[in-house]
Amino acid sequence: MKQGLFITFEGGDGSGKSTQINRLGQYLQDAGYHVLLTREPGGTAISEQIRGILLDPENGEMAPMTECMLYAAARSQLVSQVIRPALEEGTIVICDRFLDSSIAYQAYGRGLGSAVEEINGYGIDGCMPDLTIYLRIDPKAGHSRISGRDQDRIESEPDAFHERVLQGYDSLYEKYPERILCLDAGQSIEKIAEIIREEVQERIRRRQP
Amino acid sequence: MKQGLFITFEGGDGSGKSTQINRLGQYLQDAGYHVLLTREPGGTAISEQIRGILLDPENGEMAPMTECMLYAAARSQLVSQVIRPALEEGTIVICDRFLDSSIAYQAYGRGLGSAVEEINGYGIDGCMPDLTIYLRIDPKAGHSRISGRDQDRIESEPDAFHERVLQGYDSLYEKYPERILCLDAGQSIEKIAEIIREEVQERIRRRQP
Repeated sequence: MKQGLFITFEGGDGSGKSTQINRLGQYLQDAGYHVLLTREPGGTAISEQIRGILLDPENGEMAPMTECMLYAAARSQLVSQVIRPALEEGTIVICDRFLDSSIAYQAYGRGLGSAVEEINGYGIDGCMPDLTIYLRIDPKAGHSRISGRDQDRIESEPDAFHERVLQGYDSLYEKYPERILCLDAGQSIEKIAEIIREEVQERIRRRQP
Repeated sequence: MKQGLFITFEGGDGSGKSTQINRLGQYLQDAGYHVLLTREPGGTAISEQIRGILLDPENGEMAPMTECMLYAAARSQLVSQVIRPALEEGTIVICDRFLDSSIAYQAYGRGLGSAVEEINGYGIDGCMPDLTIYLRIDPKAGHSRISGRDQDRIESEPDAFHERVLQGYDSLYEKYPERILCLDAGQSIEKIAEIIREEVQERIRRRQP
């Protein structure tokens, strides 16, 4: 059976994920690979409806566990309808945020702890990334990078929340150094893109028989 | 601390839950109690948005685990924002469907098993009904009762699904005979209403010091 490669991008707001995802996607397409770009929460009609509820600044009354379950629901749908079928066809799937975001934002940011990983385990059902690019940025620096745009319900949380998110990401990197590549998001776009390309090429080579 | 009474109504479609809920609510209000009527999925602004996704017949691609998580998310919000605060103020809360519906429809109907109870446990956090009225009806009989109205995504599932739901409800009744009162929904509306009133009066008496 063919088997694709599952790459996720993680990091705080303003870490430059979108820019690097587009660069990598273009590079891999130009090299002749089947590539699927998707994002969380979203990526399917149902998940985008859930995204609308999650990010609406009007929904300020949302309980932390409700938030956790909505992210898990959107992810479950994306895995079963898009990511798993694409990987089974040999596609390279690049996803903007995945489970690590829930660990960082809900388990650490909201303080929900191990419940987050347990609930999400049922939705992901073993479909974990082969490689995660973690673009590490200080929350204050990230925040100043996005200050020009409208902020959603999560982005507009206070500094202490985003500090806990950073701590969550750092803990994940410590726990899974093989899967997660941690890069200083303060480097030039070109430099970061180059490191990512090299790492992805290496992972593709390892896959080949 | 004052403590209200949490009553839920369960049963297949067409079992007459709404009729009996309205009767009981009116009776208790006339008797001078503070009563809150609510429903699942729904009962808060956020939960009603989730209800819209769950019941939309256009969302036929929904994965079973996504469905389970969306119900759990709507329930988590309802418990934290409405049910728990009302119970703490001494209100009698009557809810149209609750956790048992997820066990019957998702664990049995969709075949998701014990995952349903585990996921929901995080959202409910110990807030279980004191009394559950289970209006038992044969799925075919229930279906013919609602045949005149538009059917949502769950109601329009095939007969085999609704048979598994019935089996789920029966198993719950067997497991929790103290909490669940099982009534034949084929009896007259008046007769059922009378049995429910007597049971609720008895539960209220037991609460009093």
